[in-house]
Amino acid sequence: MNHPSPFLAELRRPLPADLGAALKARFGDRFSVAQAVRDHHGRDESPFPATPPEAVVFAHTTEEAAQVVALCGEHRYPLIAYGAGSSLEGHLLAIQGGVTLDLSQMNRVLSVNADDLTVTVQAGVLRKQLNEHLKSTGLFFPIDPGADASIGGMCATRASGTNAVRYGTMRENVLSLTVVTADGKVIRTAGRAKKSSAGYDLTRLFIGSEGTLGVITEITLKLYPVPEAMSAAVVSFPSMAQAVRTVIQTIQLGVPVARSEYLCEHSIRAINAHSHTTMREAPTLFFEFHGTEASAREQAELVQAIASEQGGQDFEWASRPEDRTRMWNARHNAYFACLQVRPGCRAISTDTCVPISRLADSIAGARRILDTAKFPTMILGHVGDGNFHAVLLIDPDDPKEMEEAERLNDEIVRLALSMDGTCTGEHGIGLHKMGFLVEEVGEDAIDLMRRIKRSFDPDNILNPGKIFRI
Amino acid sequence: MNHPSPFLAELRRPLPADLGAALKARFGDRFSVAQAVRDHHGRDESPFPATPPEAVVFAHTTEEAAQVVALCGEHRYPLIAYGAGSSLEGHLLAIQGGVTLDLSQMNRVLSVNADDLTVTVQAGVLRKQLNEHLKSTGLFFPIDPGADASIGGMCATRASGTNAVRYGTMRENVLSLTVVTADGKVIRTAGRAKKSSAGYDLTRLFIGSEGTLGVITEITLKLYPVPEAMSAAVVSFPSMAQAVRTVIQTIQLGVPVARSEYLCEHSIRAINAHSHTTMREAPTLFFEFHGTEASAREQAELVQAIASEQGGQDFEWASRPEDRTRMWNARHNAYFACLQVRPGCRAISTDTCVPISRLADSIAGARRILDTAKFPTMILGHVGDGNFHAVLLIDPDDPKEMEEAERLNDEIVRLALSMDGTCTGEHGIGLHKMGFLVEEVGEDAIDLMRRIKRSFDPDNILNPGKIFRI
Repeated sequence: MNHPSPFLAELRRPLPADLGAALKARFGDRFSVAQAVRDHHGRDESPFPATPPEAVVFAHTTEEAAQVVALCGEHRYPLIAYGAGSSLEGHLLAIQGGVTLDLSQMNRVLSVNADDLTVTVQAGVLRKQLNEHLKSTGLFFPIDPGADASIGGMCATRASGTNAVRYGTMRENVLSLTVVTADGKVIRTAGRAKKSSAGYDLTRLFIGSEGTLGVITEITLKLYPVPEAMSAAVVSFPSMAQAVRTVIQTIQLGVPVARSEYLCEHSIRAINAHSHTTMREAPTLFFEFHGTEASAREQAELVQAIASEQGGQDFEWASRPEDRTRMWNARHNAYFACLQVRPGCRAISTDTCVPISRLADSIAGARRILDTAKFPTMILGHVGDGNFHAVLLIDPDDPKEMEEAERLNDEIVRLALSMDGTCTGEHGIGLHKMGFLVEEVGEDAIDLMRRIKRSFDPDNILNPGKIFRI
Repeated sequence: MNHPSPFLAELRRPLPADLGAALKARFGDRFSVAQAVRDHHGRDESPFPATPPEAVVFAHTTEEAAQVVALCGEHRYPLIAYGAGSSLEGHLLAIQGGVTLDLSQMNRVLSVNADDLTVTVQAGVLRKQLNEHLKSTGLFFPIDPGADASIGGMCATRASGTNAVRYGTMRENVLSLTVVTADGKVIRTAGRAKKSSAGYDLTRLFIGSEGTLGVITEITLKLYPVPEAMSAAVVSFPSMAQAVRTVIQTIQLGVPVARSEYLCEHSIRAINAHSHTTMREAPTLFFEFHGTEASAREQAELVQAIASEQGGQDFEWASRPEDRTRMWNARHNAYFACLQVRPGCRAISTDTCVPISRLADSIAGARRILDTAKFPTMILGHVGDGNFHAVLLIDPDDPKEMEEAERLNDEIVRLALSMDGTCTGEHGIGLHKMGFLVEEVGEDAIDLMRRIKRSFDPDNILNPGKIFRI
């Protein structure tokens, strides 16, 4: 990385004894300083070294969360909100010590308003749990980042994933948040109306703030009717450029595809090896279509026609649930299949997103950059949004490979920025991309972010050291 | 109104002589203190008394806008950004004096990126001008607040309108903003990628900030392919409740209607009188459908089936452009037709938005409240989003009617807030709804908004006195 390490021992502060005593008195067994508990909360899915907090508290309600924040505030001691631990950029590492506020036991669906197509949940509710809960209602929550993340964490990182091309990201699908502010107050950012012009958009400000402005404890989400018909298609191409042109034309024609995912030939090879399938080892697109029977079929026919013009082969289409599931399993297992290519490896994932007209250039450039690597690499992603991930399989015990991976990531990010893109489409900044954020939006924009942070959290207790330097 | 008047003479500051001299030296004829020019910039479409600024400057570029802001900043003198003057809640009245920065000559479309479905415009570009400019591209910008507003103003008020039920509001359709901050710096909030998780969402923070956090000078918008097929339908109902139930079921079934508008029987009567039409004087829904030929027809058939079950009558469907236009002209002219019901009147418009399950109760409640009025009233609105407007036709020379209208508006807003709705779906807070904002989000949330304002604009020069009290 091109910036000084945030992992400096002198930044760490031990737990103040009276804060520990107060938390213990209030939360009993739900307060822990056990090494195993701290270790569990000191790592995420990033390649960073484990960096445990000094203590962990498990909250059950917004009021309890507010009490923990207020106690930490009194001692000006760091507090890190924790959901499912599935973040990818070091968001929740306790680099300055601190108390981790674990919200995973805040896992109740508080109210389903089926007539309004809304649901209100506690922040620790997991994505799959929510859709399981909604099964009898005929409604679903579409955002699918892959991991079974918590809804609070998905808000905090502005998550998206495979369905975003049709349904948007967390930015578009949250109506209201309940938030504990740094001074331990509880606010609700909005009502449940679908739109509002009432004052500053605090909802969107907290979405993507990575726990640095407040602790999100409850969320009201938009829901969607389960479509009458869902179908899936897979098609392979002689080249990446032809696959990407197919996606671009699909978007430009306004075909409302629900998912459009790209897997490179290396990813398909990994899947074939892992799942004993026999897919053509070529650049491949996975589609999903939602609508009425007629409109889902019409979408599939349009996409097939576009794909054919671009040299698409082996177009396979499925509408029965079991066939769709089989077809998409390949995509869903892609990440795990890639990991198997190099046993014992650790995966580093890039996350650039560019205007869609630059997508083919961006992927081709990434491929050229990756071809210099000594370790296996794959490219896959949410190409309907211009977002893709290069997966770099490195030996976690070889610092040179880590360094090499960072260098390649740097190059891929700079290429995306040169195309008016972003260093992160959906994973967030965390610790990892603070340097890139400066390059992307400039010091003056970061200065505005800093002003917000300082005015919301003057003592810098909320997830300190993340997103930008104070 | 239930809060002290912001129109206090002692709040007004005259133009500092050296600021006037500096602006005159820099901008020549594009700086004016002429009474006619000031008067023109001292009124919007609200019922508030005209409140002119002390001077007006016409900027042509972002750099010029930054110079004006910097000069006002040096003198800690108020600055009010001005687009088309079509705001409805007193947003741009110069209640503390100040310089109005007129952006209407910043009216260039800077770049159309048809392959990316994006366009970048200067803030003064008008909505209709933009769609005219896009005609040859096969793309369009869907947000339609009725007025031919400027794109910058639409951002500043978080505008929406008839198409929002399908395409979202300004919140969902802006990719990036160029903004002049209170210290005269220029920032760009994001690149052109369709999604990003890079830092705080400054884009959404400026959208809806009503000129109080920065001056929006350039905007990159999302565009959409002009649908292959567009069709329209009109259907009338025995009761408002049946009309609203039709809309709710349409939304709940996931029919992707492009517009769904409600007009009450009084509105239809006004239209018949104004346009010499013979529509049934009953609660009426107007729909528009976008899609392929097949899917637009399928949507119309679904809606007709739902409407029939709810007692819908006189279902009329049109796909030819001239027939669609004729059909929708009634809706587009509704506001003007209503005004003709009482010659010389002034219209006050409410703007509540509620969760859609409460929409029928909310409209019925509003009707009961309005039935006590001594002047004519109508209800119409964007019911697919839960948003409607009561139009109150008052005598502008009768302060008692104005007072009565405010009292009725208060009651309608309180009813919406009791349903977890908002006091403003799309018009903004301005001067008019500052009291309601407190009731809606609470003092603690407003305190966060205040912190942002103070940290961005410590001398309170940007559109002071709007949205909330400092």
